[in-house]
Amino acid sequence: MPPVIDVNADLGEGFGRWDLGDDDALLEVVTSANVACGFHAGDPLIMRRVCAGAVARGVTIGAQVSYRDLAGFGRREMDVAPAELTAEVLYQIAALDGVARAEGGRVAYVKPHGALYNRIVRDPVQAAAVADAVRAYDPALPLLTLPGSAVHEAAGGLTVVAECFADRAYTPAGALVSRREPGAVIHDRDAVVARAVRMAAEGTVEAVDGSVVDIPARSLCVHGDTSGAVGLARAVRAALAEAGVRVEPFA
Amino acid sequence: MPPVIDVNADLGEGFGRWDLGDDDALLEVVTSANVACGFHAGDPLIMRRVCAGAVARGVTIGAQVSYRDLAGFGRREMDVAPAELTAEVLYQIAALDGVARAEGGRVAYVKPHGALYNRIVRDPVQAAAVADAVRAYDPALPLLTLPGSAVHEAAGGLTVVAECFADRAYTPAGALVSRREPGAVIHDRDAVVARAVRMAAEGTVEAVDGSVVDIPARSLCVHGDTSGAVGLARAVRAALAEAGVRVEPFA
Amino acid sequence: MPPVIDVNADLGEGFGRWDLGDDDALLEVVTSANVACGFHAGDPLIMRRVCAGAVARGVTIGAQVSYRDLAGFGRREMDVAPAELTAEVLYQIAALDGVARAEGGRVAYVKPHGALYNRIVRDPVQAAAVADAVRAYDPALPLLTLPGSAVHEAAGGLTVVAECFADRAYTPAGALVSRREPGAVIHDRDAVVARAVRMAAEGTVEAVDGSVVDIPARSLCVHGDTSGAVGLARAVRAALAEAGVRVEPFA
Amino acid sequence: MPPVIDVNADLGEGFGRWDLGDDDALLEVVTSANVACGFHAGDPLIMRRVCAGAVARGVTIGAQVSYRDLAGFGRREMDVAPAELTAEVLYQIAALDGVARAEGGRVAYVKPHGALYNRIVRDPVQAAAVADAVRAYDPALPLLTLPGSAVHEAAGGLTVVAECFADRAYTPAGALVSRREPGAVIHDRDAVVARAVRMAAEGTVEAVDGSVVDIPARSLCVHGDTSGAVGLARAVRAALAEAGVRVEPFA
Repeated sequence: MPPVIDVNADLGEGFGRWDLGDDDALLEVVTSANVACGFHAGDPLIMRRVCAGAVARGVTIGAQVSYRDLAGFGRREMDVAPAELTAEVLYQIAALDGVARAEGGRVAYVKPHGALYNRIVRDPVQAAAVADAVRAYDPALPLLTLPGSAVHEAAGGLTVVAECFADRAYTPAGALVSRREPGAVIHDRDAVVARAVRMAAEGTVEAVDGSVVDIPARSLCVHGDTSGAVGLARAVRAALAEAGVRVEPFA
Repeated sequence: MPPVIDVNADLGEGFGRWDLGDDDALLEVVTSANVACGFHAGDPLIMRRVCAGAVARGVTIGAQVSYRDLAGFGRREMDVAPAELTAEVLYQIAALDGVARAEGGRVAYVKPHGALYNRIVRDPVQAAAVADAVRAYDPALPLLTLPGSAVHEAAGGLTVVAECFADRAYTPAGALVSRREPGAVIHDRDAVVARAVRMAAEGTVEAVDGSVVDIPARSLCVHGDTSGAVGLARAVRAALAEAGVRVEPFA
Repeated sequence: MPPVIDVNADLGEGFGRWDLGDDDALLEVVTSANVACGFHAGDPLIMRRVCAGAVARGVTIGAQVSYRDLAGFGRREMDVAPAELTAEVLYQIAALDGVARAEGGRVAYVKPHGALYNRIVRDPVQAAAVADAVRAYDPALPLLTLPGSAVHEAAGGLTVVAECFADRAYTPAGALVSRREPGAVIHDRDAVVARAVRMAAEGTVEAVDGSVVDIPARSLCVHGDTSGAVGLARAVRAALAEAGVRVEPFA
Repeated sequence: MPPVIDVNADLGEGFGRWDLGDDDALLEVVTSANVACGFHAGDPLIMRRVCAGAVARGVTIGAQVSYRDLAGFGRREMDVAPAELTAEVLYQIAALDGVARAEGGRVAYVKPHGALYNRIVRDPVQAAAVADAVRAYDPALPLLTLPGSAVHEAAGGLTVVAECFADRAYTPAGALVSRREPGAVIHDRDAVVARAVRMAAEGTVEAVDGSVVDIPARSLCVHGDTSGAVGLARAVRAALAEAGVRVEPFA
């Protein structure tokens, strides 16, 4: 059996008058679209358009849930009480699912965004709050996140799907190097493409100390909000095909 | 067969630190709860609590959809483009329905709030936009609104349920007297109770000119956000029972 | 004396993660910057950066005040009560003025944005509410708007400065052709530049019926949020210089 | 010389349709009003009304600045970047000052609210960001906060005024007992009144271990948003007068 990987990206991250990224172009590249639900970005009309585009292209739709923080694009950690966080995540999943269903699709997974994504890697309370929301909406929905996180422990019966990042440096322990460290983000296009193929084909990555680390991931995250992002995503997708990796959604 | 009426009220209209009305007390009185969906009032945690309370008491849940206007409590007309309004209403219905289902209930009808409620009585474009949202989410959901409005014409195959207001003055044509007119709101408690019973039992009301007008309505709206509102609602409910009117949800 | 004109544009219309237009490039072209104050666009950090840039280049700062409507970019008319509108406009002017003063500048005029700009051309109540806010903050601040509008009548002792638009078609009565009409916006670059020079040098424009209309304006508005906008603005500015028009702020 | 103390409370913490506390009653009790600036509570119209009321009664106006978090009432810590926090605080001070000046008053001090108040007690980065904002607006404005906090070190040349809380338990080190601890808030009315008098007259408080601690404070904070709050504040004010303490604003 050839190796298989999903390619996911954040979509629908404009708001009102403001655009961000090229949703239509990304929908041609990814197999899973993490669609913003209105709390850090996205508005109902954008959500509807992205869902329609995803359905038309057979792209799987995921709910990219966030702290309520439009001004900070969901990138600031917030000490939200667990019951409130659960309700907020539930609200976002439900809103997007309804919009997706109106377009003939549905929410097939949940991926926390930004500061919430990072927080639940280490905070069992917020991790449990997010897991509770998914469970309350539909316990069959997988949660897409980093391997080894607190959310795995909090997940209970939920399916947790691990993802990897081709353009991020890894520690020898298999964690992401913090963005505050130099070299945390890899900008060389050929290097990113090569790492993506290795991750998908072998499930390994070369860590910052040169050691080879296992990172078993079912999905590969590509970024869509920077200039050149779409071109890089296309190059990754092409290289995966050339390397004989099947690119298929996980959900 | 004895006459039958539904009693509805707006619930869940607090936001964060701010309370409004007494949701728990009202849930003991009404048969249908118009639950705010976060656009003019309500936040996910409040929505969840109100839905849980409604399910526990067998109260039917409706989506009280609104313009996006927290600062104005949805009371200012807005020239929202139809596609955007449709998406916003769809988003709100879906969000509340997901929250309600997590509590064992579901959204069983849609009632527009405030300025949107009034606007779609006379604006066929926004009326069609709202109807499109309901149809896109679930064409079986009834829309609770004023009889004779533009939304009736825009409804297409949707079920439209008429409501009446015991504490509002009516014109001889069966329309509400504008709140800008003196006497538009009836404050005398006994008068309100008597009018409620007459509306439910006979389907008529005495208009401002003394004429008797037919107002065939399946639901009676009581207000919950003013002091004394709960007491008045209880008095109406008791008088309906005493008059032999069955009080049952329409949805 | 050679003719004199001001060149104004909207700046600082990003929000958080979202950019809009090229503020730095526009600051090299305009003599007056209409800086968004956070109600339709703009956040405190963006406001601070734009004010610092304006001060560094000697560009006059104006408060681009708006309805409270981030989701709609201030482009939807709202029925805001007059006392509330006055308070909201006052708040925005004051906030920007404080930010500007921290950077060594100050707010030197007020220009309403979007739907509010259009509304006060014909609505004397909202026009008076805006004028009240300017008067309450500083009666010496001029108001930049369309000539002949209701705001002129409402202005009382306020200075009202008229502006014109090089890329908009005019009626024989000297009003703007509605954007809903075909031909309302002129896209031909040479035509826009020629119109700008004629407006500044002669105070006239050729209306849609071919007649020549007086439009005495002290400021010329250029747009900055579309692709090619900066290039067009530069071309207008260069043509004004070549035609011997002095380009100077009005405030 | 008799001892002197200021009495401050949070005012203007409603938003749109939602009220909170009894601003008019509190304005009769306090000498300094911490007026919400729109980021955690307060809207321009409320700000204007509270400032008018404060000016009419000779109450000093302070800017109660906050994280941007209406949904959380400013009670959730946020990892806002320093430059952004400085700009946000500057914006809030300026907005309120402009509103206050339109009513014949002015902002005479700054008091951070909620989570920001607590955060800058221990976070030198955010403390410096807040101090930078005050300095940028007007270096003569005092900052009202807890004694011994990181903000004192960050204040540079700013005047920092210490406040105390009559209804809060203190540690032997003179710090507030965390609200998460039992007994953190003192509910017995007579005890609160007696502690207030002792704080004002002697500058001491009995800590939770029975020891007597110096808490030199120039202002006493009373709460206004709970039922019975106004009555308690009145009792404190009366007891201070009876004990011969002069109650005067610090700014």
